[in-house]
Parts: sequence; structure tokens; C-alpha cells
Amino acid sequence: MVYPDTFEGFQIDGPDTWTEFQKRPFQPKPFGDYDVEIRISACGVCSSDIHTINGGWGERPFPLCVGHEIVGTAIRVGPKVTLIEHGQRVGVGAQCLSCLECKQCKNGNEVYCLKQVSTYGKKYPGTDITTQGGYASHIRAHEYFVFPIPEKLDTAQAAPMLCAGITAYSPLVRHGCAPGSKVGIVGLGGIGHFAVMFAKALGAEVWVISRTRAKEEDARKLGADGFIATCEEEWNEPHRMTFDLVLNTANSSKGFDLNRYLSLLDVHKRFISVGLPEGSGNEIHAKQLLGNGVLMGASHLGNRQEMLEMLQLAADKGVKGWIEEIPISEDGLKLAVTRLHDNDVRYRFVLTEYWRAFGITMKELALACTSCH
Amino acid sequence: MVYPDTFEGFQIDGPDTWTEFQKRPFQPKPFGDYDVEIRISACGVCSSDIHTINGGWGERPFPLCVGHEIVGTAIRVGPKVTLIEHGQRVGVGAQCLSCLECKQCKNGNEVYCLKQVSTYGKKYPGTDITTQGGYASHIRAHEYFVFPIPEKLDTAQAAPMLCAGITAYSPLVRHGCAPGSKVGIVGLGGIGHFAVMFAKALGAEVWVISRTRAKEEDARKLGADGFIATCEEEWNEPHRMTFDLVLNTANSSKGFDLNRYLSLLDVHKRFISVGLPEGSGNEIHAKQLLGNGVLMGASHLGNRQEMLEMLQLAADKGVKGWIEEIPISEDGLKLAVTRLHDNDVRYRFVLTEYWRAFGITMKELALACTSCH
Repeated sequence: MVYPDTFEGFQIDGPDTWTEFQKRPFQPKPFGDYDVEIRISACGVCSSDIHTINGGWGERPFPLCVGHEIVGTAIRVGPKVTLIEHGQRVGVGAQCLSCLECKQCKNGNEVYCLKQVSTYGKKYPGTDITTQGGYASHIRAHEYFVFPIPEKLDTAQAAPMLCAGITAYSPLVRHGCAPGSKVGIVGLGGIGHFAVMFAKALGAEVWVISRTRAKEEDARKLGADGFIATCEEEWNEPHRMTFDLVLNTANSSKGFDLNRYLSLLDVHKRFISVGLPEGSGNEIHAKQLLGNGVLMGASHLGNRQEMLEMLQLAADKGVKGWIEEIPISEDGLKLAVTRLHDNDVRYRFVLTEYWRAFGITMKELALACTSCH
Repeated sequence: MVYPDTFEGFQIDGPDTWTEFQKRPFQPKPFGDYDVEIRISACGVCSSDIHTINGGWGERPFPLCVGHEIVGTAIRVGPKVTLIEHGQRVGVGAQCLSCLECKQCKNGNEVYCLKQVSTYGKKYPGTDITTQGGYASHIRAHEYFVFPIPEKLDTAQAAPMLCAGITAYSPLVRHGCAPGSKVGIVGLGGIGHFAVMFAKALGAEVWVISRTRAKEEDARKLGADGFIATCEEEWNEPHRMTFDLVLNTANSSKGFDLNRYLSLLDVHKRFISVGLPEGSGNEIHAKQLLGNGVLMGASHLGNRQEMLEMLQLAADKGVKGWIEEIPISEDGLKLAVTRLHDNDVRYRFVLTEYWRAFGITMKELALACTSCH
């Protein structure tokens, strides 16, 4: 069987061989009336991919093709699709379905729908098929989770915004990042560097909070107004109760002195985590939250409206992630996940040159040419 | 030395003798220009008093007179006092001072002022004197922390509202309790029973969440619309993502399955703790907060405006705490703290008949008669 009955992708067979990608065909979900089929041309490499394939987040269904920062071309649209046009350059993030009928879905909270389906590693409802991600030739997704990419945004630039970007953007706009606010970004990585740029684009005063001063120059280049190094004694004291929002993008909770972070926030302001470190969390006692009535929360991706707004904001304000492109292949993927695992990236890998791995038809070539400037 | 150079109160000498109250004179802070001096006539017995005298909250300065749900008569007002009149029936809660100048104080958050002073067990700024609470003949406090009691409220009824009441009321109004909202109250004790009544008075649908069904009848009598017993299997399932606010008044975190509580809340709604259990807290991982983007926080007392509103609401709507009056004395206090420690109270002890312990002057008698109906 070949396309369109099967797609082709780079799969991992289990945590023991989490850097050994196997290129092979796999069966996609049946094509539905609201589905968009996308020929993939780029995909960012997210820490979630690593946590999934190396077993850090627990058991997952293998073999599995990860990747959820996907940009490509809509080469087929279902008969009921109204949001996406054939031939359009589009993106897919970390979510590919929700019920679209519950209270949460109807309130712009489809990311919190109890029936949400992740872009990879979950069963498609009503099938035995496991969702497969963007280290692949194609993906099928419900149109509601497919987003047109503004013309001004480069394909490789847009890709990491579909997960890292929106993971930073949504909590910023939901939890108080605005002109006049003072926002702290903990951790300068894939998500963190987007958080700095988007918080600036949204008009806030932005401080990067990092373990050492090693990334201070980068932070300033990204637009940060200030920099705090938590290896320095009493680092929180000058900033007590002055922040309106602290976004924690750190990917590890090791040695994290939560109390000092919480002390930064003004009354009832918010400390929001978007990283999901492996291992255990922090012990928390009500008294730690009492001094300033701080609210502690976590945020998951962002909704469709926020995704469209973010992409437009990035296009309008020229927000550009710091990316490193790697042609997709067994070796390229091994390099990408190994270096990302070792935090050796500033600040996002994007897999490109999909045509080398998966070929290209004349029709697709023509389409690609019209959508690329 | 006698009054007004000394006050008289029932003090505890240390955690080893935390039920042995010693009646003796103590030196009050110097009388300031903004101070109100109150002849105490009633004081509620709060769990904080127990945690303080039995060492559960750690070291405290002894000998110490606790009690911070104080009602009495203003028998002296400083030359700069404008908020309180001589002879007025007034209350003092758990806070007796803040700087009144910082950003927090100016924003109605004097309870979160970094220079706040608790009603007992803290040093008065600029002195070596430890604040002493309401198990005493008198108290002096800055007028901003002294609240006129509405005529319709009985003295013994008003007393426990000064701490238990406001501790329930402030987070309710700050975190979304309103007509149309669904509010859960965890734990039916001193604070919890006020929370149920105030949440109802504020127009919410109110559910009590308790370990067993033992208090269901009480909950319904207090006005609860529903009751959840957490000893029952899968108790949270029917209520997933339906609550707008859960107020945790539980005084213990033992066996607390936090995830189930958090699952009750709709997206970005709040789980607010007002109890300060002794011992350790709960381990929390960002992923526990991710499913619904719930915000977890704690709340500390309430501000002056909220205190005045709450007392008026109680007067207007006839909110009445379930109290048991105990005349203040060595034996009465021993009984009160022992029974409260054993959770043997429904739902608040109030110490009364202060005149038996501390006498009464003819002038005070006359004042008391004019202010009491």
C-alpha cells in the first residue's frame, strides 16, 4: 500500500532505542468530512517529543512517530471543510481533535476538553489507530486544528510557533501580560525565548529569570528589559511583590526554590508553569501561597483564536524564533533529539527538506512554488 | 501598676502547658495618636489560637495571650482617630497594624503588607512589646483595624466573624462567588460554616465537601444546596469541571487526594486554601494543574472594606454563626481549647462574661447599657 492509503514517517520503537528512528509506512486515520490532509514540509523538535520517546513521561504506544510543530500544504480537504482551502499553507500543533460540543470547547477552551486528542500517541476516537506526528510525509487533522500561516511568516519560522510559540503566547494573554505589566520568564529555551518575544510584542516589561548569567546576552537580544540570575544570593529580594505574571518554562524542577519565585508576585498575581518536567514536583503548603495570595497554575497550549492571533502578531511585528534547520533523516533526527536532550540548542531545531526523505510530485512542486515567495 | 498602665489577660507560658491559662497583668503598647482602646466583652476561639499555643506552627514568644476575634467597647480614642467614636461597639480581627503606605496597603491589600502585624505574638514596630490578643481585659489597635459593629449584630455573634467570618468572606468575593456560580466549601468547621452562609448570602449555588456524611444535615441547615462525601468512591466524577470556586477550609491535609479536588474546577477557576494545617503540605506537579488550567492559591483574612461589607451583609441577611458561649476563666479556656483541638465544637466557641474575670466600672456599665439593646 502506498499513499494515500499509507503515510510514511520516522518512528521510534521504544524508550530503549529513543534515538534510532525507523523510516516506514504507517496507516493514517480514515479521511473524514471535516479533515484536512497536509503534505508536511517542516516540523519543529519539541521537548515533548523527547519526553515521549525516551519514556520520561511514562508508557506510550510504540512504534510512534512524534513531532507536533507541523507546517505543510493542504493537499486535500473534506467536503464539509470551510476553514481551510485546498493548496493553502497551514500548520498543526500538539492537538488534532476535541469534541467541539462541550462547555469547554464552546468557551474557547478546546485545549481543556476532556475528549481532546493529542497529535501523536493517542487513539483516534472510534478507531484502533494511534495518532502519528509530524516526522512524517503527511498528516490528517480536523480543520479546527489546522491553521492558515500568514504569508509573511517563513515556513521554518512558523513551525515552532505551533507548539512552543502558542504554549508561551496563550498564558501570556490569559494571565495578564499587557502594556504596563511586569512579566518574568523563567528559563530561556524553546518556549522561553518565544515567551520573551511575545511578551515584548504584547507591550510588557519583560525579565528573564535564569540559573546563571550565561544567557543574559541572548535575553537582551531577544528584547528582555532585565535579567535575574537565581544563582546569586537573595536574588528575589529587590523584586518582591513587583511582578504581575511569572511564566515558568523551565524543563526541570531540580533545585527549584519555589518560595523565592512566588515571592516575586504582587497580590493575587500568577505563577504559571508550562513546562512539564519529568519526575516529581514541588511540595507545596498553603502557607507558601499566603504571603501574597499568589495563584499558581499551569497552562496547556492555546486555543484556535489565540493561535491565529499569535501567528498574525508574529507576522505583523516580525517575531522570529532563533531556529536551526536540520534536514529530516535518520541521522538528522538522531542529532536533533540528542542535542535537544542535552540542552544544546539555541533555541529550536526545525526539521526541513522533507522532499529529500519523502519525495515530491510535480503537482506538489507547483503548489509549493505558488505558496512560497 | 494597674489599668491603664497594664492590661490583664489569660496567658500561656509555652507549648508544654498549652491548656494552662495564667491570669496576670501585662504591659500594652504605648497609646498612639491613631489608636483605639477597647474594653473587651467577647472573643471567639480560633484554631490559630491552638496552633500558636501548642507549638504546631513553630516557636512563638511566650508568655502569650491569644485570641483575635474581639468585640468590645471603644473606651478611649487617640487625637487623630476619625474612623471610630468613643463609646462605639467595635471589633478587632487577626491583624492590628500595617504600614498603610505601600502599594499593597493602598490597593486594599493591607493584609498582604510586608509590615503587617498580627494581633498577637508579634513585636509592635518600634517597641520591644509583643502583641497580646483578646483573652484579655483590653486591647489597643490602630483605628484602621478597628471595625464598628452594626447594631443588628449581637456581640457574641459578631466576634467569630472578625477572623473566621472574614477568612471565608474575602476569598469568596475576590475569587468569583456570585449569583450563578457553583461554589464548593471543603470542611465544615468554624470557617467552613461561615463560608456556606456567606456564599449563600452572596447568591451562589453552594456545595459542602466533607469526608463523611456526618455533617450533611448541618450543611443543609446552614443553607447548602448539595453535599459531597469524599469517602465515597469516585466522588468527584459527577462534578468534574463544574465548579467556579472551591474554598478549602480543612484544617488538615492528611489523606487529602488533591487531584480529585482540583478536577472539580472549570477552566482557570480557583482552588483557594484558607486553612493552614500543621505539618507538611501536598506534593504538586505542574501536570496536576494542566488538565483544566486550575489556579491554586491561598487567602489571608480580608481587608477593611470587606470586613465592613461582611458585617453589614450579616446584619442585613441575618447570617448567624452557630456558636457556643463559654464564660472566660482558666477553666472555661481550658475547656474551649481542649474541645476545639478535638474538633468537638459546632462550630465556634465564643468567650463571654468578661466582667466576671476583669470586673466592670460604673462608667463602662453605663456605656455597655447604651450600646446594648
